[in-house]
Amino acid sequence: MKVAIVGAGAIGMLTACYLADRRHDVVLLTQRKEQAERINDHGLQLIDFYGRTQRKAVKAKTLAGLTEKDQLDVVILTVKAYSVKDVLSQLKDKRISSILFLQNGMAHIDYFADLPIATVAVGVMEHGAVRENDHTVRHTGRGRLRWGYVRKEAALLDDLFAADSGEDAFPVRYEGDWLEMLQQKLIVNACINPLTALLGVKNGELVTSRPRKEMMRAIFTEVMQVLERDDEEERWAHVVRVCEQTASNTSSMLVDLSNRRQTEIASISGYLIRLAEQKQLAVPVLNFVTMAVSSKEEAARKEGDD
Amino acid sequence: MKVAIVGAGAIGMLTACYLADRRHDVVLLTQRKEQAERINDHGLQLIDFYGRTQRKAVKAKTLAGLTEKDQLDVVILTVKAYSVKDVLSQLKDKRISSILFLQNGMAHIDYFADLPIATVAVGVMEHGAVRENDHTVRHTGRGRLRWGYVRKEAALLDDLFAADSGEDAFPVRYEGDWLEMLQQKLIVNACINPLTALLGVKNGELVTSRPRKEMMRAIFTEVMQVLERDDEEERWAHVVRVCEQTASNTSSMLVDLSNRRQTEIASISGYLIRLAEQKQLAVPVLNFVTMAVSSKEEAARKEGDD
Repeated sequence: MKVAIVGAGAIGMLTACYLADRRHDVVLLTQRKEQAERINDHGLQLIDFYGRTQRKAVKAKTLAGLTEKDQLDVVILTVKAYSVKDVLSQLKDKRISSILFLQNGMAHIDYFADLPIATVAVGVMEHGAVRENDHTVRHTGRGRLRWGYVRKEAALLDDLFAADSGEDAFPVRYEGDWLEMLQQKLIVNACINPLTALLGVKNGELVTSRPRKEMMRAIFTEVMQVLERDDEEERWAHVVRVCEQTASNTSSMLVDLSNRRQTEIASISGYLIRLAEQKQLAVPVLNFVTMAVSSKEEAARKEGDD
Repeated sequence: MKVAIVGAGAIGMLTACYLADRRHDVVLLTQRKEQAERINDHGLQLIDFYGRTQRKAVKAKTLAGLTEKDQLDVVILTVKAYSVKDVLSQLKDKRISSILFLQNGMAHIDYFADLPIATVAVGVMEHGAVRENDHTVRHTGRGRLRWGYVRKEAALLDDLFAADSGEDAFPVRYEGDWLEMLQQKLIVNACINPLTALLGVKNGELVTSRPRKEMMRAIFTEVMQVLERDDEEERWAHVVRVCEQTASNTSSMLVDLSNRRQTEIASISGYLIRLAEQKQLAVPVLNFVTMAVSSKEEAARKEGDD
């Protein structure tokens, strides 16, 4: 099966490595020509959970270098949420049978309806990975890649993940209710990411301090109101558990701010604020924390310009 | 007239210097014995607005060293808001005719009713000052000391400030409506101090960035609701003007956090939150920003312990 993975960050490289293990024909589509060349020169390297370095049979080329002749069975989109729109416009004329979205937040679900691709799926990545360099990724946390069909014309994604036994190095799990899966992840991300970014603390520190835990609860309460859910205690227990289980992790949003990169605040908290506006609900804390992260993003960008 | 100034920080030293100029018998009451000794050894030094250093006729002793024999015409309290309770209990048995409170926030007004002192006044300090060392203060911003009587048995404070022409180096202004005066200052402090402390920015930066200005407006809106005022546009214009006029200043709350000292959040935002609770008003943003500053205070204290 011909698989293209768009986005050669940590998640893209990690996914490419494990799909290559399943004997698929995997190409990694990069933004930068330099990165594609490095991967083709050195091979894509995976440092696995036991610290072993393995070279994988993955080729790379730039997304811009994709031609109309390229027939792709499956495209997996691992770019940041704010790049989805741009990437989809670049993929517009290409022959693609199935597409799988792997983004944080829920802003990308708005693109599903008009997408000229028959089979659309969406997933959430619970594996941890760190990009070591342009052609090396380290698998730091063994979780699951959870995914589900939004609409299904062909079962190519079933075939793609078919070799999975659920016990291998890269567990994958099918979820029947993709919206529920995304919402559960969104709740966790909306609580943890902006607050760790604003306060400059690790995930675990959100639950070891009374005021920080109360701040997170204030965010959580508004998120639940917007999503109109009735499993408040179960979801809160889950958020707290994620903080504890990833206690020493630095959230991607804090990493982005520290590295003066754009954050995913618009697709996480921003999505919830837009939903609240549609429902005419007041979300003062979500608004406040979103503006706080935006202002820090703006300040970091300006420092970068100096 | 025998005047005691309690608290030998920047504001206490500055006030002592200018009152000594008016030929009053001024004693500065310090917390630390070492500071009192230094002032008595070196004299209290004022670096005035033109950079000239002047030595003032001010004696110092510790607050604890005050005896029941000491008859004081006027006591001026310049300690931080969170120390007022403790200082008042130390002054309980002393013979004091009049007292003037110079604190940020409004938490201290709760002490007025039960105070065994006949004349009570309250003021807001709009002069800027920086403590250079234990016996030297620099006058950095020429504003006004505004004050008013809460209850008046004797006119000692009129006499104290009588020499004021309104054109000298330390302008003082009497205000008929002390509650209005405190509220106006509280609105400014509640908007500027916690937000600069949370974001780590100078006063002026609150109005040069759209998201920061929106955050400040969100705080401001809740403050106005709690105080049930109807001059919203006038007060907002004032807050913005203070940000612009003190653009390069670092707020006292940000300085306190940076120096790992306790902040005045409880007497500023905390006072408003308690008032909102009494009125059964929801103030989610005030709560959020107060918890944010408290959590940074807590973290700074822990770092200090290491």
